[in-house]
Amino acid sequence: MAKEMRIGIAGLGNVGTGVVKIIQKHARDLEQRSGRKFKIVAVSARSKKKTRGVKLSAYEWLNDPLELVNNPEIDVIVELIGGSSGIAYELVVAALSAGKHVVTANKALLAHHGHELAALAEKQGVSLCFEGSVAGGIPAIKALREGFAANDVQSVRGILNGTCNYILTEMRETGRDFKDVLKEAQAKGYAEADPSFDVDGIDTAHKLSILTALAFGIKPDIKKVETRGIRNITAADIQHATELGYKIKLLGLCRREGKKIIQSVEPCLVQEQSALGSVNGVLNAVHVQGDFVGTGWLVGRGAGEGPTASAVVADLIDIARGNQLPVFGIPAKALKTGAFASADVLNAHFYMHMIVRDQPGVLAQIAAILRDHKVSVEAVLQRGRDPGKPVSIVMTTHLVNQSDIRKAVEKIGKLTVTKGKPCVMRIEQA
Amino acid sequence: MAKEMRIGIAGLGNVGTGVVKIIQKHARDLEQRSGRKFKIVAVSARSKKKTRGVKLSAYEWLNDPLELVNNPEIDVIVELIGGSSGIAYELVVAALSAGKHVVTANKALLAHHGHELAALAEKQGVSLCFEGSVAGGIPAIKALREGFAANDVQSVRGILNGTCNYILTEMRETGRDFKDVLKEAQAKGYAEADPSFDVDGIDTAHKLSILTALAFGIKPDIKKVETRGIRNITAADIQHATELGYKIKLLGLCRREGKKIIQSVEPCLVQEQSALGSVNGVLNAVHVQGDFVGTGWLVGRGAGEGPTASAVVADLIDIARGNQLPVFGIPAKALKTGAFASADVLNAHFYMHMIVRDQPGVLAQIAAILRDHKVSVEAVLQRGRDPGKPVSIVMTTHLVNQSDIRKAVEKIGKLTVTKGKPCVMRIEQA
Repeated sequence: MAKEMRIGIAGLGNVGTGVVKIIQKHARDLEQRSGRKFKIVAVSARSKKKTRGVKLSAYEWLNDPLELVNNPEIDVIVELIGGSSGIAYELVVAALSAGKHVVTANKALLAHHGHELAALAEKQGVSLCFEGSVAGGIPAIKALREGFAANDVQSVRGILNGTCNYILTEMRETGRDFKDVLKEAQAKGYAEADPSFDVDGIDTAHKLSILTALAFGIKPDIKKVETRGIRNITAADIQHATELGYKIKLLGLCRREGKKIIQSVEPCLVQEQSALGSVNGVLNAVHVQGDFVGTGWLVGRGAGEGPTASAVVADLIDIARGNQLPVFGIPAKALKTGAFASADVLNAHFYMHMIVRDQPGVLAQIAAILRDHKVSVEAVLQRGRDPGKPVSIVMTTHLVNQSDIRKAVEKIGKLTVTKGKPCVMRIEQA
Repeated sequence: MAKEMRIGIAGLGNVGTGVVKIIQKHARDLEQRSGRKFKIVAVSARSKKKTRGVKLSAYEWLNDPLELVNNPEIDVIVELIGGSSGIAYELVVAALSAGKHVVTANKALLAHHGHELAALAEKQGVSLCFEGSVAGGIPAIKALREGFAANDVQSVRGILNGTCNYILTEMRETGRDFKDVLKEAQAKGYAEADPSFDVDGIDTAHKLSILTALAFGIKPDIKKVETRGIRNITAADIQHATELGYKIKLLGLCRREGKKIIQSVEPCLVQEQSALGSVNGVLNAVHVQGDFVGTGWLVGRGAGEGPTASAVVADLIDIARGNQLPVFGIPAKALKTGAFASADVLNAHFYMHMIVRDQPGVLAQIAAILRDHKVSVEAVLQRGRDPGKPVSIVMTTHLVNQSDIRKAVEKIGKLTVTKGKPCVMRIEQA
């Protein structure tokens, strides 16, 4: 049996604590499965005093996580500090430079510095693993890098943020509006005090950029993700979608479109009974389409102590087993700079919702704009009648170009009879 | 870049042909992803003349697959002949003995000889990979052996046979009975002329025994799978299940029960909207419950040229990358002989359907038997009334012991007023 694998852990929040728990609870299984004993040598976190429900006295305590790098007794550093720069970045660079393997669940770090770090890891001949960075306990990274590696991937679609999916699920089930449900989610600890990172789609964009890199062999490029969040989804939109047999989900989508790649985060409609439509609450899902495998998808808990720690320890097992993989599925030096197209090139069915004054000729005005932009309407749903007052008009379209429909909706938004900004969302088949 | 990986393929049915297609079409990607060029050296199949839609002239043709073993130019043998014994078994033993890696999609072989073959592969220091043997393109083996390896697995539940799932889905959607839908499936090529292997649950049992070995670190033990098929499911059962909000699925289930393991294949009811309830048609699914990850599941196409070939080539990529894993997740010599319990120890909710003569006192007789066996009824559904004629009684139960309810139902079946054999199925929460 090979020698023990000596681990240093930086960051002891939920996930870090979970990692310690797994290593303590499953010591025997981990050794049997990987062929090596797992030994935690040292840990580092901000507060030594915090109650964590786990015994840490056997491990060296370091106030400065960078000291983990200087310890020659450590083979692998687990970075669970978070953040795309600062100490997390410094630690990972220092660890790789010192020839230590790194396991991290830090999506922001990978999204911003993935290529540079992958190149450094490969130059040093060490592993850089990040299964926990996307979709928590779901082995989505492994599926793309290994399980589906025989395929030319055409698209990846994911529900990647549990907070958003929880909010959208709650809105649907209770009929309440966004702000109300967000407040409740914050009270329950499902959403942060500053929810922007989640509800504006930034977290999903980070994760998506990692999946895109793996799916298409390109450098992660967070700057090239078109990102829209869920703040503007109204209770009425949710209700209309339900009536039409759809659910609204915040989707991260990457798709090959000719020689270019589309990379977008936006709320979309998906059929209620579809693969993604049946993923509710805090669950995450990753849906892959490949040329030989067809479609395959993975679902599970996307965050939290247990699931994310499970993914982090799976990475440690890979390292202990001696399985070293190209960080993004192909050598870092072979990763191309992505050529991106806007999601506006997509042809799809769309959902539109506009609020207009109920007066003669309004529908004709709207219809003319749609015709001028080649938008062909499939169904119209006018909610009630109230002459002179604002009423909702809901439409779904035949297959139309996203750019065309966006332009049309912008014009409709400028009509004097239109109240507020019309809403348009793509209907994704998944 | 390491030297090329030289491959011999035995068996050129759908899957074998698919493997050749992938290696031809994705030559550049496979090399980039694995670091080695994939070179097919020789192929072997029964008929050289058969039209396969793929060019084979560049490869040596061998009439005897065992000759692949004698070729020193071959590093990996892909066994796609099938069958638990005979030439497939001989070939795999010979290949491993000769120090060649083996990739197979042969579930019967693994179910019957898994432990022996794993021990041989590990002794020889070569890989024995079988991702294609279970659930086609879905990376279920990888998920259990690597992705969820940080967990103590509590249960695995799978929809593992596309033919059965197609038949059950069709029965539900059309209201037709089993024989009728089976005949149509045979005509469409979804079911074999002799459908027993699929519809009697044998194929599912083979696959389940492999998942059980991986989940619990035991030797695959096909003899210890309690197996019931779907032949006796009636159109009426499907309809009652639908009315109650359930679907009937043939599930392979393994679950830890104290120190023992339950391993069973049987039709069960699952909630319509649940993880497994939403898996329809020829799709397969594998649902895993672990102590840290919680629940996670994978869904995709479970058979066919593309998906299974995708899994076989994923195994080849693993081998080319130099990733060698213990065949069943832990060293073969550490695999224990499973201690199994009958699924009758389970406590669950149940569905019952009996046909009885419509006469006074019948329900009282049935109720007395149920009471004597501690079966507490949750809901009763009596279909119509027709004095003196047979009527259906459908019941669901509270949490009861499976052994108790089976005994009760056996007694009910012996009542003079009962027509035919009553049906009882477990309601699985998934």
